[in-house]
Amino acid sequence: MVPFKKIVICGIGLIGGSLALALRKAGYSGKIVGLERNKEILSRAHALGIVDDAGSPLGETFQDADLLVLAVPVAQTASVLKMVRPYLSSDIVVTDTGSTKTNVVTMARQVLNEKIACFIPAHPIAGREMNGPEAAVDNLFAGKKTVITILPENRKDAIEKIAGLWEQCGSVIHYLTPEDHDNVFATVSHMPHLLAYGLVDYVAKHSKSDMFFQYAASGFRDFTRIASSSPEMWRDITLANRAHLLTELDAYLQELEHIRDLVEKADGHGLEKIYANAQQARMNWLNTIENSELKK
Amino acid sequence: MVPFKKIVICGIGLIGGSLALALRKAGYSGKIVGLERNKEILSRAHALGIVDDAGSPLGETFQDADLLVLAVPVAQTASVLKMVRPYLSSDIVVTDTGSTKTNVVTMARQVLNEKIACFIPAHPIAGREMNGPEAAVDNLFAGKKTVITILPENRKDAIEKIAGLWEQCGSVIHYLTPEDHDNVFATVSHMPHLLAYGLVDYVAKHSKSDMFFQYAASGFRDFTRIASSSPEMWRDITLANRAHLLTELDAYLQELEHIRDLVEKADGHGLEKIYANAQQARMNWLNTIENSELKK
Repeated sequence: MVPFKKIVICGIGLIGGSLALALRKAGYSGKIVGLERNKEILSRAHALGIVDDAGSPLGETFQDADLLVLAVPVAQTASVLKMVRPYLSSDIVVTDTGSTKTNVVTMARQVLNEKIACFIPAHPIAGREMNGPEAAVDNLFAGKKTVITILPENRKDAIEKIAGLWEQCGSVIHYLTPEDHDNVFATVSHMPHLLAYGLVDYVAKHSKSDMFFQYAASGFRDFTRIASSSPEMWRDITLANRAHLLTELDAYLQELEHIRDLVEKADGHGLEKIYANAQQARMNWLNTIENSELKK
Repeated sequence: MVPFKKIVICGIGLIGGSLALALRKAGYSGKIVGLERNKEILSRAHALGIVDDAGSPLGETFQDADLLVLAVPVAQTASVLKMVRPYLSSDIVVTDTGSTKTNVVTMARQVLNEKIACFIPAHPIAGREMNGPEAAVDNLFAGKKTVITILPENRKDAIEKIAGLWEQCGSVIHYLTPEDHDNVFATVSHMPHLLAYGLVDYVAKHSKSDMFFQYAASGFRDFTRIASSSPEMWRDITLANRAHLLTELDAYLQELEHIRDLVEKADGHGLEKIYANAQQARMNWLNTIENSELKK
């Protein structure tokens, strides 16, 4: 059972809208109220049946609300929390869905201050290459991981409520520290985006660009798929996770310099060792984690 | 009509075997003879009906042959040509299928010498992630490009015969210089392989490797798909295309250093400009080249 009675979702786009639809599918019968800076998006979400109530004054919106979910771009976390802080009751639970966690926690601490215990940071690992309430689907989180990055101040019952919320959407709960979370996603998600954007930009600006694109094929297509993602969203994620991104990028650049030297020295043995290690590691990952996940 | 009467294919793996099957499908009724260092592979290809004749002495193999196709790893080009040179008739046409061209041309010139006019370098842009004669299929080249990198010595009729050969397999003929060919594929194929191998190797060797792989998802999967390719084959391609790879890699590393500096300076505007340029360029490529190709 969904452990809440009235849920306010701030940001009714792909993530916020999909959460609302997934909760309804799971049998949640309480209220779901939408909160949006852009009233037109809220009207569309209301017309789509994603939220029950749209556009009420904040006092009314938060009346009896026992959960606030932030599903806005991470850069807006502080301003949204400032706006709603006066309306938060003493027993409300607040959570978010942001792709980065240490900066969200920093902002939440600054704004919520002594109320920080109510804030349970979370990140559902799911997405589509589409945006807006029209992109929302009720199975977006089914079989996907949701990472909760508990704070020392969080109470056990509040943590369990947020875990229950996502479990009701079909998600599998994982726990990481905010630091580990940001380190992990800098490496396996944020850096690859940056590398793919960089390669396409490099090819596009090359004097032989037309010829290069003419012969780019399926390898290039898959390698650069993530370079079709939203530039604004990825600008924000890059800035939000700057510190970890720089650390991982510098380390990866060292690996590339090493490979570059092996190429220059025509060290076939050294190159093959790296290629074979990568091929083996990827196969292990596919067999033990990625494909077993897909089967769920 | 296939413009040959007796074809010797050296190397009956995925490419050589698929060529034989595609020619048969196109109605070629002449002889197809297989040549293999590994007699066991040749027997398997013969049993699969890919080649008519297997394992004859070289003199017999080349008796009346009017085409020799090299479908061996590029590094073996020189040794194979040395072995067969004494058996090449004055009117035979020789071609190859290698992923790199300048080094193949250099080897061919060294071995064939005054006979170089008979050698028409070619590269069918097609592949699968499987090897051996069992992986061969008759539609591997259908709708795919074949790049021919003409030499000044080549005669027009010999060039047209090789173009005709691949057109009969459903391939679309493109012409590039060997230099441009190697530059193009260094950028859109060879370098992405190296970057993907490098990223998986980096993650696998990291002290937090297990945690990283645990949360790697679809973006990582597609970005690194090419890191599941054969390490031996990609070692050879890397070495064969060393010069162009180094040039492109150094230029791309400069782009990455620039992006790294934007991240360090938290220059959101500069980052978004690069991301947006890449997103737009990739969409243009998909719309004008890649997707129109898929429809064929």
